[in-house]
Amino acid sequence: RIMRPDDANIAGNVHGGTILKMIEEAGAIISTRHCNSQAEEPCVAALARVERTDFLSPMCIGEVANVSAEITYTSRHSVEVQVNVMSENILTGAKKMTNKATLWYVPLSLKNVNKVLEVPPIQYARKEQEDEGKKRYEEQKLDRLETKQRNGDVILPVINPEPHTVGYSQSSLIHLVGPSDCTLLGFVHGGVTMKLMDEVAGIVAARHCKTNIVTASVDAINFHEKIKKGCVITVSGRMTFTSNKSMEIEVFVDADPFVDEPRERYRAVSAFFTYVSLSKEGKPLPVPQLLTETEDEKRRFEEGKGRYLQTKAKRQAQMQQAAQQ
Amino acid sequence: RIMRPDDANIAGNVHGGTILKMIEEAGAIISTRHCNSQAEEPCVAALARVERTDFLSPMCIGEVANVSAEITYTSRHSVEVQVNVMSENILTGAKKMTNKATLWYVPLSLKNVNKVLEVPPIQYARKEQEDEGKKRYEEQKLDRLETKQRNGDVILPVINPEPHTVGYSQSSLIHLVGPSDCTLLGFVHGGVTMKLMDEVAGIVAARHCKTNIVTASVDAINFHEKIKKGCVITVSGRMTFTSNKSMEIEVFVDADPFVDEPRERYRAVSAFFTYVSLSKEGKPLPVPQLLTETEDEKRRFEEGKGRYLQTKAKRQAQMQQAAQQ
Amino acid sequence: RIMRPDDANIAGNVHGGTILKMIEEAGAIISTRHCNSQAEEPCVAALARVERTDFLSPMCIGEVANVSAEITYTSRHSVEVQVNVMSENILTGAKKMTNKATLWYVPLSLKNVNKVLEVPPIQYARKEQEDEGKKRYEEQKLDRLETKQRNGDVILPVINPEPHTVGYSQSSLIHLVGPSDCTLLGFVHGGVTMKLMDEVAGIVAARHCKTNIVTASVDAINFHEKIKKGCVITVSGRMTFTSNKSMEIEVFVDADPFVDEPRERYRAVSAFFTYVSLSKEGKPLPVPQLLTETEDEKRRFEEGKGRYLQTKAKRQAQMQQAAQQ
Repeated sequence: RIMRPDDANIAGNVHGGTILKMIEEAGAIISTRHCNSQAEEPCVAALARVERTDFLSPMCIGEVANVSAEITYTSRHSVEVQVNVMSENILTGAKKMTNKATLWYVPLSLKNVNKVLEVPPIQYARKEQEDEGKKRYEEQKLDRLETKQRNGDVILPVINPEPHTVGYSQSSLIHLVGPSDCTLLGFVHGGVTMKLMDEVAGIVAARHCKTNIVTASVDAINFHEKIKKGCVITVSGRMTFTSNKSMEIEVFVDADPFVDEPRERYRAVSAFFTYVSLSKEGKPLPVPQLLTETEDEKRRFEEGKGRYLQTKAKRQAQMQQAAQQ
Repeated sequence: RIMRPDDANIAGNVHGGTILKMIEEAGAIISTRHCNSQAEEPCVAALARVERTDFLSPMCIGEVANVSAEITYTSRHSVEVQVNVMSENILTGAKKMTNKATLWYVPLSLKNVNKVLEVPPIQYARKEQEDEGKKRYEEQKLDRLETKQRNGDVILPVINPEPHTVGYSQSSLIHLVGPSDCTLLGFVHGGVTMKLMDEVAGIVAARHCKTNIVTASVDAINFHEKIKKGCVITVSGRMTFTSNKSMEIEVFVDADPFVDEPRERYRAVSAFFTYVSLSKEGKPLPVPQLLTETEDEKRRFEEGKGRYLQTKAKRQAQMQQAAQQ
Repeated sequence: RIMRPDDANIAGNVHGGTILKMIEEAGAIISTRHCNSQAEEPCVAALARVERTDFLSPMCIGEVANVSAEITYTSRHSVEVQVNVMSENILTGAKKMTNKATLWYVPLSLKNVNKVLEVPPIQYARKEQEDEGKKRYEEQKLDRLETKQRNGDVILPVINPEPHTVGYSQSSLIHLVGPSDCTLLGFVHGGVTMKLMDEVAGIVAARHCKTNIVTASVDAINFHEKIKKGCVITVSGRMTFTSNKSMEIEVFVDADPFVDEPRERYRAVSAFFTYVSLSKEGKPLPVPQLLTETEDEKRRFEEGKGRYLQTKAKRQAQMQQAAQQ
């Protein structure tokens, strides 16, 4: 579809959240279709996890987004989908890869939302594809467990914060979940949640550096808990780390089933977003360093630095591999 | 994309206007891409006309709309696009043809919006395809001229109208044209206009028969005049004809460039929409007859009857042809 | 236009904010048109104030909102518009008055947004109409001055609040101002701001009483400062007063022009919203009493009580007057 002014920031760059939402919709369609292809019981595929994704080049207003999706692995109860997004300038015909994402879905019964159904197996062209898929499946399973433990954290408000401290840029928004945000099961689409998360992360980044910012990458996101129609969700973001030219922002989503529900507020999702600041010519700008004050902030800064160096090392290894081929 | 609650009426049937908007977006993308493929000057394809289209089966919330578009003819200054919409129930895998539409686009220069550029010719598989396309081109050209003359008419308000008269159900809405309604040239997308027209026509139909109604077909629509960002558009609808099971509604779009423009309010588009009333089981219901009072209303009723009988005759001829093959 | 699922809460009642937004759009169109009717310089009417408005009966999904607007007074630099909203159930034909609102607009030059232009005078049928309008004009002018002084207040966060305290239900959201939120001048539509304010107030009310709530009335709102495209706005609400069956919520809007602007965060609007809690049958329910803790909270409670009693007295006076006629 054609990118509109509402999909983009003032500089005309399409929000990462808009792209994540398109990716998730494509993934939900292909995996729901697959899971119902042999099912005795109708089901809806629910997003369980999105692997880390890099935004390779910004998309602009007026460009057309081409989204393609393919099922690349199935376990007994989950589906792995690979989604590619290309941006196409229909005036010049130029096409660019915007990003690739890998998503994991789980089929939930339409009659009983707490029942996970079995996934029909796919055929692999080569045995290695199945083995590699299985490896990815095991890896993400481990990672899911890990983030579950991180989930107790809350963001505390700060009065009169100094510029460039964590408290200075931290932000949160609340959103009442409406019917158009939800799947047939009455739970929020993962894509809707990711769009709100990107919105908050973008505001944190812009408050910190006061320039035009764009989403550079999103770390793996795990959807631990479903969010029901009618809930109020609070999406909060705080900066955890800055390198010379990038900012890492941690985003939490808490759901508050405040009408007709005997349940307490709970953490539904958390994730790390990385932003860069761009000049008017689209070049990355230096970013003011984050000032950490408390012990927790210093610890999180070091953890962020770890993730940053790890990603950098991985990317260099990939580039060397590519150069050798 | 997945159909959401906001795309549909209370009974869960997707609005014809939502479908028309998707069709037009697909047509605009493919024809803009084609016209820029060899162009020296960048251009944006603007919708000039939509041929009559029938809605074959209603689409529902939760279904996926598959839209495919193909260029079927090019004249020197216009492109004919054929768009097909399939609805897919991803739970059952069932697919149904929702409708087919034929649209005509004209490439306008991005630098000078009043300049119509030349269209690169397409290759035809067979000579007959080109001849048939040319015939369709000539036919629509004639028809365009005709509707241009009809355009002076206005809708006058009626105080305390009797049930089932024209005045009883006539309706209008105003809309301030925002940035996301517009193309790169700053003019309203044809699809946005059609969606508003369908909304008004639907209100007229529901006011008349007080039941669940769906769009059955839309007569050819000609876009005589562009509508600029910042305009206020008034969309008005009045019932012109009823058969036993259908209602014909005439819809006008007037644009009011009320800021910064030395121009008067003008008629931008007009068209006929046909609605049917459906029972809870999805069966067509009888429709109360339209009571005509003035001479003009009686004349329009007869004209509507003419269109209705003509369409009916055409459809019977097609069915006989199909039966003979 | 037809009310859609996204316009309403889970119980199907249309948000007061959706109605306020429609009212403001109608007011902006009629006053912009009027101010350009004889103008030498093109202008856009900006919302300066909305008088207190009562929501007489809730509107539901599927109903059609009929909005009509009329200019009732013009001063040298401002326009008073009266807007009426009727809800129409198009299935039964039943019409109900939803609310009436009085709005004040100021024409700003399209070339220089800081220049207020002159308003062409309207003709009055009777001399008394002009005099009454002038009286209303003077009254609102005084009131505007008063609220300007109230504007320094901020909402402080509370950790682990007790149920039914002020801190327990207070809420805030942030919103990045996008192109569709803005007028041709690049400033946020008053109606967009009011919709966000109602959203926050509604969440505060629902958090307090955990039931289905609807907007009962909105006190006069003054728009002291324009908000520019690209700003982040923070909308915060806290409960100030509860009667047996109503809740009063104070809402602040702060704008943060954080990109490319040498300006500090500033208070753009503040207002009081009154909510009632409804049972499934649509009857008003008792509301838990607000627990005030600090001196400020106690003072605000008393002030809220004052407003409540004043409004009650006014309404009784009007009813007696009506009974005598």
